[in-house]
Amino acid sequence: MNTTEHSEFLSFKNVHIHDTFWTPLMERVRTKVIPYQWEALNDHVPGAEPSGCMRNFKIAAQLARPELDYGEDSSAGHYGFVFQDSDAAKWIEAAAGALAWHPDEALEQTVDGAIDIICNAQQSDGYLNTYYIIKGLEGRFTNLKDNHELYCFGHFVEAATAYYEATGKRKLLDAMIRYTDCVDRHIGPEEGKLHGYPGHEIAEMALARLYGITKDEKHLKLAKYFIDERGKRPYFFAQEECRRNGGTESDGMDKSGDHYHYHQAHKPVREQSAAVGHAVRAVYLYSGTADIARLTGDDALLEACRRLWDNIVKRQMYITGAVGQSVHGEAFTFDYDLPNDTAYGETCASIGLAFFARRMASLAPRAVYGDTLERALFNGIISGMSLDGMSFFYVNPLEALPESCGKDQSRRHVKFERQKWFACACCPPNVARIIASLGSYVHSVGDDCVYTHLFVGSEAKFVAGGKNVSLKLETGYPWRGHVDISFTVDGGEAEFRYGFRIPGWCASHTVALNGDNALCTEKDGFAYIKREWRSGDRLTLVFDMPVTFIEANPHVRENAGKMALMRGPLVYCLEEADNGKELFRLRAGFPAHHSIKVQYEKDLLGGVTSVSFMGRKLKGWNKDDLYRAASEAAYEEKDLRWIPYYAWANRDPGEMAVWINK
Amino acid sequence: MNTTEHSEFLSFKNVHIHDTFWTPLMERVRTKVIPYQWEALNDHVPGAEPSGCMRNFKIAAQLARPELDYGEDSSAGHYGFVFQDSDAAKWIEAAAGALAWHPDEALEQTVDGAIDIICNAQQSDGYLNTYYIIKGLEGRFTNLKDNHELYCFGHFVEAATAYYEATGKRKLLDAMIRYTDCVDRHIGPEEGKLHGYPGHEIAEMALARLYGITKDEKHLKLAKYFIDERGKRPYFFAQEECRRNGGTESDGMDKSGDHYHYHQAHKPVREQSAAVGHAVRAVYLYSGTADIARLTGDDALLEACRRLWDNIVKRQMYITGAVGQSVHGEAFTFDYDLPNDTAYGETCASIGLAFFARRMASLAPRAVYGDTLERALFNGIISGMSLDGMSFFYVNPLEALPESCGKDQSRRHVKFERQKWFACACCPPNVARIIASLGSYVHSVGDDCVYTHLFVGSEAKFVAGGKNVSLKLETGYPWRGHVDISFTVDGGEAEFRYGFRIPGWCASHTVALNGDNALCTEKDGFAYIKREWRSGDRLTLVFDMPVTFIEANPHVRENAGKMALMRGPLVYCLEEADNGKELFRLRAGFPAHHSIKVQYEKDLLGGVTSVSFMGRKLKGWNKDDLYRAASEAAYEEKDLRWIPYYAWANRDPGEMAVWINK
Repeated sequence: MNTTEHSEFLSFKNVHIHDTFWTPLMERVRTKVIPYQWEALNDHVPGAEPSGCMRNFKIAAQLARPELDYGEDSSAGHYGFVFQDSDAAKWIEAAAGALAWHPDEALEQTVDGAIDIICNAQQSDGYLNTYYIIKGLEGRFTNLKDNHELYCFGHFVEAATAYYEATGKRKLLDAMIRYTDCVDRHIGPEEGKLHGYPGHEIAEMALARLYGITKDEKHLKLAKYFIDERGKRPYFFAQEECRRNGGTESDGMDKSGDHYHYHQAHKPVREQSAAVGHAVRAVYLYSGTADIARLTGDDALLEACRRLWDNIVKRQMYITGAVGQSVHGEAFTFDYDLPNDTAYGETCASIGLAFFARRMASLAPRAVYGDTLERALFNGIISGMSLDGMSFFYVNPLEALPESCGKDQSRRHVKFERQKWFACACCPPNVARIIASLGSYVHSVGDDCVYTHLFVGSEAKFVAGGKNVSLKLETGYPWRGHVDISFTVDGGEAEFRYGFRIPGWCASHTVALNGDNALCTEKDGFAYIKREWRSGDRLTLVFDMPVTFIEANPHVRENAGKMALMRGPLVYCLEEADNGKELFRLRAGFPAHHSIKVQYEKDLLGGVTSVSFMGRKLKGWNKDDLYRAASEAAYEEKDLRWIPYYAWANRDPGEMAVWINK
Repeated sequence: MNTTEHSEFLSFKNVHIHDTFWTPLMERVRTKVIPYQWEALNDHVPGAEPSGCMRNFKIAAQLARPELDYGEDSSAGHYGFVFQDSDAAKWIEAAAGALAWHPDEALEQTVDGAIDIICNAQQSDGYLNTYYIIKGLEGRFTNLKDNHELYCFGHFVEAATAYYEATGKRKLLDAMIRYTDCVDRHIGPEEGKLHGYPGHEIAEMALARLYGITKDEKHLKLAKYFIDERGKRPYFFAQEECRRNGGTESDGMDKSGDHYHYHQAHKPVREQSAAVGHAVRAVYLYSGTADIARLTGDDALLEACRRLWDNIVKRQMYITGAVGQSVHGEAFTFDYDLPNDTAYGETCASIGLAFFARRMASLAPRAVYGDTLERALFNGIISGMSLDGMSFFYVNPLEALPESCGKDQSRRHVKFERQKWFACACCPPNVARIIASLGSYVHSVGDDCVYTHLFVGSEAKFVAGGKNVSLKLETGYPWRGHVDISFTVDGGEAEFRYGFRIPGWCASHTVALNGDNALCTEKDGFAYIKREWRSGDRLTLVFDMPVTFIEANPHVRENAGKMALMRGPLVYCLEEADNGKELFRLRAGFPAHHSIKVQYEKDLLGGVTSVSFMGRKLKGWNKDDLYRAASEAAYEEKDLRWIPYYAWANRDPGEMAVWINK
């Protein structure tokens, strides 16, 4: 492994964002989503299905009585899904991100109060899962496959590390270290321990993050064990099922591993090469695997990560960065299978893809990782949240036809209006936590090099060339391709390489250093300048950002003969609100020479750059003739107006399409 | 109602088919399907899931002991679905058709033996349903919605009338008259009777057919009652559920009728105007409704039939005559929603559409009915059976990609290989019964006119102009558009109008009478000649049959920019066996002037006319680039070879497509 390629991303604590695009989004998360979610976790949202989340912790902590308020479902005391705890963890992580860039005493007090309740529920041996504390501890660690115990554990470790990074407070961190010790006592390679691993991955990357703080080898070892053990034969998930049912391992258990594709446990991670199964689980596993590959220098794991990465990005990723094509199992399907109208593309899966991208970028500076991170962030992730921050998409289709969503059960998962909150509330807090921690996706620092992966207006502080350096980035991205980067070096100057990603969508760019053309070396899509950086040094990057018609690989059957539109990192779409019904009748008219109008409209959808040009629309005929002898297709001229995909479904409900006929 | 437009189809008993296309198919049914199905009904097919059907009758007749042979499932004695009885009925009906055109003493004895067993199971009050006889008669008529009791009843009435028509034997007919009396004692408008109707329709048309033989008003009245009562409020299905559950009618029952779309019981039939719900149920209901409309002269029912017909044929019918777009509920969805790759298009639903078409044609001679009958017969129906008669499609997609069927659960219902027999064996015997009775779809006789709806080589006998007339039809249809019709009149001459359908696919035709151009009047797609027909009169019809590229209405989103190919009544398709993989990359190249090769190939797929021309194929690019800036599409020339759709999936398993880009 070439460890000189490694770098570590700066914490959100050290990258302060002030960006024309992202700051309003982060403010939306801070001022609307986080407070709303806190109300939801406490069952204070009128008319909404109760969450039960914080109440479960109070019951587990014996601060509340189980029998109150919840009607029929209260009989067993625990309310909601087995993974209800994770909502609190995601909320704390989101709050941590928000606190890191916007100190807020009231919010911090609220989080501290939540942590107090949560820690009160922790058992003397460190165990902390309200489902089993309330339902009976004898059941714990008996169904790792289905019951999300290690998933909630992982989310809490994430929350604890984030809150520690943001505030320096150790209470939750210490609690989670104790919980980690508890898990470690029950699961591991030693005899007498369970040889198990999470049914829903996340603990792997969470423990890697914890190790980054504690440097306790035990934490790294546990994460590595989860990855090493996964998919080994005999299958742990089969064994634990036998134990629960009182059978023996040979009793009708799945020996082929086919049933474990959903959990990516069909074979050892080192042998995997195609993304399979539940997409969120998958990308979380791959993210954790990349962490462990880097922390342990394990080449076989790195190779597995690269194969899985390639499989996703070259075969199974929507143009929006959505992944997981099928509603069935919320899962990956097969190479080049990218249906637009039945796409699942769970918001959380795109978030997980961003996690994976960040970790791959940490392993080696290649532009494809930042490109994909950017693709997911600007499209498939933020499409999950409405412009007012009050409603959310779980599923992110690339084509929506309201009638079809209502009348065809195979498309019922596709919504054309964002929902207030979901009974399974995984996506909204996940969107909140990634946006709130956006600062930790911008720059990374390696042995002799500082890398910029995302162009987000911000001020970053780090050590390079032995000096404290501050890097200020100003940009009108994603609407304009102009980026100004200025350096301040404590003590005058510092020698290091600085590299920035040349976006994959950009065919032509210029770089100026202090006003003069700069000579860069380029490698793997990064441009590098090595010099003694001085305070006042200023880099000016100009990325050409024309409207680009995109085509999909001919292996993608759903997009044969079609085009999509991008400008910079943004995928565009057509909406009924601008273009009328039956978007499928539209044609771009490519490759005729278009006069393309690109216009920033500050009053449209919170301020977006729209794209318009004269396309064509298939003329209608007698609606009573379903079939007829084909004539040369008759089109009428039709002005097509495109908006950024992320902003769709913020006006009257209607059709949407990303891909139309050329 | 204009009853002068009415006509009655000749029975298969009076239309003897000898046709180059259909006779081999009928022979296949007679010599392979019918014997195989008899073995299946008797659980004699090695390796196949037992049917239990005939055994259920033996148990019900106390000719066999219930506890033998069936392992776990035998506990209650009855084996298989609640509608298992209907398989025997369909088989008898198929055998009746076969016996009508090919006397076969051994087969007739087998049927008689089956009828003996079946009649032995009949209860003293006429009741005959093995599920309830075996499970307990106290349960009968308590779940008309779900338990298919009146469905099995209807199928047996169909079988009884068919066998009587074919052989003149009354045993089963009399048994079914007694069963009808039994049903009539339990269900009807009178107080004390159930105000119910079938959960799965068919009894409506069966009783109409029975009435055609018995002329017993009671039989017509019961059929009419089923149709009149359907969809009235309060909903009978809700009421019977309450009775079963001991609740009252107001107990949480569906009051909106929304849940009854599946059963077409959401509102009264007279008020329905869109085809909804389970497609087979729907077209069976509409067929029965058309029968009752004709037999009772009920204009409101006729109008409902016409609205429903139009909705199907103008909005919801695949080019192959397949209906029922969605696997969910095997159901209709909504107007212009005709996805190709997730199409359900159950073979039985196309058969039901043929039933409906025949009845609509009986109400008024309009070519659209025969056109649709022909479309379904030559495409969506016979595609259900393999060329060797030994395997069957339940689902008839218009596009199949094997990988997708295997790896995407939302397409798992789509098969690319026909199956031996289904656990739910409804389609194979249904194909058998319609093919075996094809003679009853050819001609109809009205007050002063004889109509030919289908061009099938045959000899028909009927009375017209007061004389016995024989009409001999010879044709190379569907491969050639040449039809010779010769008349023989007992006693020299008979005056009547003769009308024949001008196929909707035919843009140009000629008619000669005894060698000279004939002057026809035309109305609603029929051409008419009125004269004194004499023995030796000969009509020669020549229908131009060019290869025709077809386009779908622009409202059909899945076919925007695409074309299909027809020649005569046949829809064509592309198969991987002829055209390689990734058929979606092919383009017809329309409207370039093609040199189209049309060739009858006697050794291909049992003898078919193939169509070939030079089209284009989207060139591939680097398989690792999922997206790129669009260039002018690069195509390579590619010879496209089309085969008739019905013959697909008879070679190596692979892809198939009906619609490709123009």
